[in-house]
Amino acid sequence: MLVDDLILVSVDDHLVEPPGLFDGRLPARFADSAPRVERKADGSDVWVFEGQEIPNIGLNAVAGRPPEEYGIEPTRFDDLRPGAYDVDRRIDDMNANGVLGSMCFPSFPQFCGQVFAKASDPQLGLAVLRAYNDWHIDAWCGAHPGRFIPLAVLPIWDPDLMADEVHRVAAKGCHAVTFSENPEKLGLPSFHREHWDPFWTACADLGTVVCLHLGSSSEVVMTSLEAPITTMISLQPMNLVQAAADLLWSRVIREFPVRIALSEGGIGWIPYFLERADYVYERHARWTGSDFGGRLPSEVFRERFLTCFIDDGAGIELRDHIGVESICWECDYPHSDSTWPNSPERLLRSLDGVHRTEIEAITHRNAMREFQFDPFSHRPLEQSTVGALRAEATGVDTQVRSSGQGRPAPDEPVTLLALMEKAQGVLDAASGTGPTA
Amino acid sequence: MLVDDLILVSVDDHLVEPPGLFDGRLPARFADSAPRVERKADGSDVWVFEGQEIPNIGLNAVAGRPPEEYGIEPTRFDDLRPGAYDVDRRIDDMNANGVLGSMCFPSFPQFCGQVFAKASDPQLGLAVLRAYNDWHIDAWCGAHPGRFIPLAVLPIWDPDLMADEVHRVAAKGCHAVTFSENPEKLGLPSFHREHWDPFWTACADLGTVVCLHLGSSSEVVMTSLEAPITTMISLQPMNLVQAAADLLWSRVIREFPVRIALSEGGIGWIPYFLERADYVYERHARWTGSDFGGRLPSEVFRERFLTCFIDDGAGIELRDHIGVESICWECDYPHSDSTWPNSPERLLRSLDGVHRTEIEAITHRNAMREFQFDPFSHRPLEQSTVGALRAEATGVDTQVRSSGQGRPAPDEPVTLLALMEKAQGVLDAASGTGPTA
Repeated sequence: MLVDDLILVSVDDHLVEPPGLFDGRLPARFADSAPRVERKADGSDVWVFEGQEIPNIGLNAVAGRPPEEYGIEPTRFDDLRPGAYDVDRRIDDMNANGVLGSMCFPSFPQFCGQVFAKASDPQLGLAVLRAYNDWHIDAWCGAHPGRFIPLAVLPIWDPDLMADEVHRVAAKGCHAVTFSENPEKLGLPSFHREHWDPFWTACADLGTVVCLHLGSSSEVVMTSLEAPITTMISLQPMNLVQAAADLLWSRVIREFPVRIALSEGGIGWIPYFLERADYVYERHARWTGSDFGGRLPSEVFRERFLTCFIDDGAGIELRDHIGVESICWECDYPHSDSTWPNSPERLLRSLDGVHRTEIEAITHRNAMREFQFDPFSHRPLEQSTVGALRAEATGVDTQVRSSGQGRPAPDEPVTLLALMEKAQGVLDAASGTGPTA
Repeated sequence: MLVDDLILVSVDDHLVEPPGLFDGRLPARFADSAPRVERKADGSDVWVFEGQEIPNIGLNAVAGRPPEEYGIEPTRFDDLRPGAYDVDRRIDDMNANGVLGSMCFPSFPQFCGQVFAKASDPQLGLAVLRAYNDWHIDAWCGAHPGRFIPLAVLPIWDPDLMADEVHRVAAKGCHAVTFSENPEKLGLPSFHREHWDPFWTACADLGTVVCLHLGSSSEVVMTSLEAPITTMISLQPMNLVQAAADLLWSRVIREFPVRIALSEGGIGWIPYFLERADYVYERHARWTGSDFGGRLPSEVFRERFLTCFIDDGAGIELRDHIGVESICWECDYPHSDSTWPNSPERLLRSLDGVHRTEIEAITHRNAMREFQFDPFSHRPLEQSTVGALRAEATGVDTQVRSSGQGRPAPDEPVTLLALMEKAQGVLDAASGTGPTA
């Protein structure tokens, strides 16, 4: 298979919310309380919602930057590549990378809308959240039909409202929602409570996929604050291993036919995870009361979980252990793990030796089926390939550019502690409180 | 290759300390303070050391029990299979399973001697610890030369004493020590402090392998107390993923040519782990100051880490990604994950299609080289095979037997919380305090 013949649908990208997103989208009584962008004294841009200030408008949105500057997160819109927040420029960047379709996770609201959940007035929180979803579906995705898989945030403070919103956005063509990989870590009931049943029921009824993005528990796997930051970065997908285990053995999977997507989780760990699950089931089912209805945990996983990868040779090599029908691809634009603008070349290297029908399943067919996404009703298949899309992007400049804030490489590894202290400094500067002791 | 032709050296088994272990092994002034076994009013046996009572003498030592009884941990010696604590019976059980060599982790002192570290008088702690190591090397391993790889516990409260003990036991032929997968979780300095340098230096100088057993941080990966216990069991090896990342990116690996064994960690996750490490290095090395001396993290891992598995098809299939020279096998006798007494049959299934020289490396050659273990100087190779050893064990009864404490399978999954409450009940019963509120 040639690079130009690939058709790519990415199930994990990120958008940075542009200023003015809420303009004209809220009832009059809430209009003045809508989240807004403010420029701070230090020149940074922040989103402000009631008492909350979210300083990194595009945390980790470093597309187009040289790797030595990845530690300097863009803190204002001028520093961001416009494709991060401008949907027309986003399409340009997708075309330049040969990407047909994309599902975009939120930035400032956090992965599952935690910021909206903190509203002092739940009515305001809900109005803002619905306005956000309307903007996401109508303005962002709607600007270029057939190019985006819509994804909704939910009112996680009330499972009945969650169910209502799942129904409301489904009626607008949105069949994916983002939730937490571990709600208990957010101070909410665990997956094991009946509390969430209205939500699971709604998703099961409508075939809506529940997307759990790495980091959506607001907790990371960490060994020590004194460890180099690379330790934590390399362990990031481990959070999703925990979420997968938590749900796989839970009553949710037994009682509701819902589909769970492990967003940005990688796939190479899954063959081991499934073998381990089956081994534990074989040895421990009887005294622990585990029951998969006569099937193995691995069989249930393959049917109910959707996985994705950026670049993952080991996972592709063992794709039969994972289930080819459950694997999707992701681009992670504009974050630092993204392979943009060379995704097709990088991906094809991993797919060496894989049969064409399997490649098609992994690169776009699985995502289309699971998310009820039909790009070919808007654009013929032959105009949807990497080659065809790139031909439309000849004017797009993908060259790597310095932010002008370069600095020498550190003498010794940057620790998590050092980075947290630096982040506190940024917060202090933005809030004008000065350095803390 | 035939089952009977395999030669098996296990790098992870467990011994239950027999009563009387310390008799005659301590200086007179400490003799009365030695840890001892006591029979409690409820009929259970506990190890007692100063104020500490360790109620489960052989936690999880369920060899020979039916799986439906795994939740009922043996709490007294009469309930244990004698191979757990009697070295002659252990040899019988090894022979019956065709196992030539075995490295045995401690039980009551905990994985890295935490119980000894809590002694009120460090002199007493050190005397007890040395007596323990002498017993382990001279009495347990010494009873059957060529059948056990000795493994020492260390005085983790003092790195200089640790270095001394590494030298002392090496002079007695012991080239493996057990340490914590994350000392910070035990209230000690993290791996990233220079604090431990005398210890790393001693191990590097003597070629002593540092074994980090799953659970040796006294912390487990857990999603929620409300999750079924199987969630936690299936996530257990994840602790070692964290330890591997913590050390791989640390100055320990850069500055000391020490070898680390990930005991009971499994291997199927390693191809993904290494790919992820290289990916993070490629993208994040420059701003994070990571430096592997011009090599990739995966190359350094293959050289410095020793891995092992019980039954792990995915890992064996991708053995070239891991490094065949770094993979060992383990039996985990007498714990619930053990494949005893059918280890050879189960293992050979995983090894289908693997070349004979690779099988030899994985089943015994790697362990012999890394742990400086030479069974063939005591017993010729042709008498060391599964077939030869089993021929010596014709009188050993390996039949599964009920403890007589059977109970119906639970109606619904046993949660971590329920198990902890039950464990508290056992502790209360043993200490006579009755149930707590």
